[in-house]
Amino acid sequence: MATFQTLPGFREFYPEECALRNFLFERFRRTALSFAFEEYDAPILEQTELFTAKSGDEIIAQLFNFEDKGGRRVAMRPEMTPSLARMVGTRANAMKRPIKWFNISEAFRYERPQRGRLRSFYQFNADMFGDMSPCADAEIIALCIHALRNFGLSCEDFHVRLSDRRLWTLLLQSHGAGDAEMQQILSLIDRIEREDPGHTIENLGKVRGIDAEKVYGDILLLKNVRTLDQLVKFFEKSSAAGDVIGERIGDFSTLLGRMEAFGLSKFVTIDFSIVRGLAYYTGFVFEAFERTGQSRALAGGGRYDNLTKKLGYSDLPAVGFAAGDVTIGNILMEKKTAPIFSKNLCCFIVYSRETEKIAMKQAAHLRWKNVNVDYCLEESNFVKQLKTAAQHKAKFVAIFDEENAASNRVRMKNMETGSENIISSGDIFAAISE
Amino acid sequence: MATFQTLPGFREFYPEECALRNFLFERFRRTALSFAFEEYDAPILEQTELFTAKSGDEIIAQLFNFEDKGGRRVAMRPEMTPSLARMVGTRANAMKRPIKWFNISEAFRYERPQRGRLRSFYQFNADMFGDMSPCADAEIIALCIHALRNFGLSCEDFHVRLSDRRLWTLLLQSHGAGDAEMQQILSLIDRIEREDPGHTIENLGKVRGIDAEKVYGDILLLKNVRTLDQLVKFFEKSSAAGDVIGERIGDFSTLLGRMEAFGLSKFVTIDFSIVRGLAYYTGFVFEAFERTGQSRALAGGGRYDNLTKKLGYSDLPAVGFAAGDVTIGNILMEKKTAPIFSKNLCCFIVYSRETEKIAMKQAAHLRWKNVNVDYCLEESNFVKQLKTAAQHKAKFVAIFDEENAASNRVRMKNMETGSENIISSGDIFAAISE
Repeated sequence: MATFQTLPGFREFYPEECALRNFLFERFRRTALSFAFEEYDAPILEQTELFTAKSGDEIIAQLFNFEDKGGRRVAMRPEMTPSLARMVGTRANAMKRPIKWFNISEAFRYERPQRGRLRSFYQFNADMFGDMSPCADAEIIALCIHALRNFGLSCEDFHVRLSDRRLWTLLLQSHGAGDAEMQQILSLIDRIEREDPGHTIENLGKVRGIDAEKVYGDILLLKNVRTLDQLVKFFEKSSAAGDVIGERIGDFSTLLGRMEAFGLSKFVTIDFSIVRGLAYYTGFVFEAFERTGQSRALAGGGRYDNLTKKLGYSDLPAVGFAAGDVTIGNILMEKKTAPIFSKNLCCFIVYSRETEKIAMKQAAHLRWKNVNVDYCLEESNFVKQLKTAAQHKAKFVAIFDEENAASNRVRMKNMETGSENIISSGDIFAAISE
Repeated sequence: MATFQTLPGFREFYPEECALRNFLFERFRRTALSFAFEEYDAPILEQTELFTAKSGDEIIAQLFNFEDKGGRRVAMRPEMTPSLARMVGTRANAMKRPIKWFNISEAFRYERPQRGRLRSFYQFNADMFGDMSPCADAEIIALCIHALRNFGLSCEDFHVRLSDRRLWTLLLQSHGAGDAEMQQILSLIDRIEREDPGHTIENLGKVRGIDAEKVYGDILLLKNVRTLDQLVKFFEKSSAAGDVIGERIGDFSTLLGRMEAFGLSKFVTIDFSIVRGLAYYTGFVFEAFERTGQSRALAGGGRYDNLTKKLGYSDLPAVGFAAGDVTIGNILMEKKTAPIFSKNLCCFIVYSRETEKIAMKQAAHLRWKNVNVDYCLEESNFVKQLKTAAQHKAKFVAIFDEENAASNRVRMKNMETGSENIISSGDIFAAISE
């Protein structure tokens, strides 16, 4: 009989891998809680329509979708945001604002598996609903930075590239672009670093009602802006000057002011080449990138004020980000900052047929107290048992020999120091808690 | 636009529900670690054939199965065991025995949703491979009991009904039943309490090569056995007496002896009406039941020594159990022993436009130290901010008023005691850690 394989792009987690995954989860969770975000979860399987309502029918090519036995069109979620928008939208009126939620869960996309991209992966999602101020954007970006730093990554390892769809939109409007043209131009900007300039200008030429050369010139200038001062100067000279621009630059200043107060300025780079492909972003957008090496994207997000309304719920401003486990996991492995897998065995119990009863009684007692306890299931000689204890890297070994057990005592060996004491068998917990 | 619904039998987890779910996960995990089990995980989506290889084609009616975009026959897992058997089977030779693994994850079954049974649910699985002794069975049963007790359930709330497929098989063999008839008769025993006796005898009459009346008589007698002594006596009188039976009763004695040493005898009832429907069990089988109320099954498991071989891997003895989140969650809600949901907000920060910088700096510092911190995103008056702090049930409030902030100080208010101190703003962490 042929043995079985996992599907392409899906992973098994043997204990070592599961420990790394759980480490990522634990750090994501810890960081989100420190920002007073609350955890939620949603079904893995949803109506396909929930996903197409957000992303259009073209998302279907990437879905694990099918018809269930009740004839429903269903799909395994490719991302958490649509389910989140439904949950928040449904109860928005009953919840205090801002609503600050996070989730750690699996998502599924039918794509060609490659390094850093699988068909099944975990995402950490953090989102805030009900607050329009740039302080909410600052909070989300700070949470993203804190999460990555909590993995041991420093500002030499990564930075957050910050951009703004709103300023892009205002600039392009000043060039005569309407709503229909906007997404078209933003897509070209999104790909600009991977295309040659001639090709980009050619494509801009196909956009209705704009002067491709002029727009291209402004795009290059805005893409080079790195400071708030440069941003102010760019718009002073541009055709898009005005009160609305001034207000938005004020938002930029508020956001950067918060980042500075948080002590996080050195993590943030203004970089308008980030536009985020997804049509649903409406304001600040950002991506966390590796600064060195492969310059991989570690996380990304931004403001999406129209989503709940688009899905049929009340109008709620929203900002959030997502980070995946695959890229971050790979970096921690390469940098060797991932924790070394260990069973964390606290106490190994050595016993004989004669002392089995008292030994097992103490094993159960220790387990009630959350001590990680192990022993050989069947009696074997002490030498063999002690060898097993050493293999398991137990911190302590409790040796129930006949002589000591008869007077309700046990030999406690500290495997780190090598020291050995004879104590009352009821005192094991106290001995290992010292 | 119509708003969206979850699919029938699937759940959303708002923060309160997510907190209960995470509480269950945390207690399962803690218990498994105390027994030195290691966590693993496997894909949610697998080849359909992996599941039919274990359970036969009739499982397909219960699957969320489909053809993926690459033409593969795939299914969302209805249980973890087949994936587990593949993982262990693939690396069995490289791993130290016994292999003690646990997992907490989601499973999916296309069944009619009803109370306590959903189409998506979480299962806690704990399994041990590579040890044939009844001590391994004892370990798994003890782990099951410890897990339920760690939820605050006592021996008045539940007990484990223990039975043995091996003794059933030996008894039925003595009546002339062959392998083909065995599963047929065990299925009748599984349903015996829900059928009237006449119907059961009639069905036994259809089984080839046995005397239905005699078999029925023995079934009733064995079902009434509650102690090891009664078990010994039953087999002394039965046609199935012999060395093999004697050995197996020895195993029973070993298993019960361990449970006694663990101090868990009062949780265990011998009860041969438990046979577990699944064909793959080969030895001791058990189910944890509510003693009172609705007598719901909380967990179940047993020995399944043939599975890895059946799936094409090397022959590995195995024993394990699974517990679901739905029934246990319902009981904790009814008994009100589930933890009360709380944001566990530690420190709420109150600030003004003038003190924003120093306040945000301290907020970031505290979050680095894993303190759960919150504040109003935008400035508002102190009265409103303090009201929000109280609504969030913060333990401490750090008030950055202008006068104190000017000398780098802050008013710390303990919301439990009402006491207030003025301290250096760098000492907040020390103050809340006291």
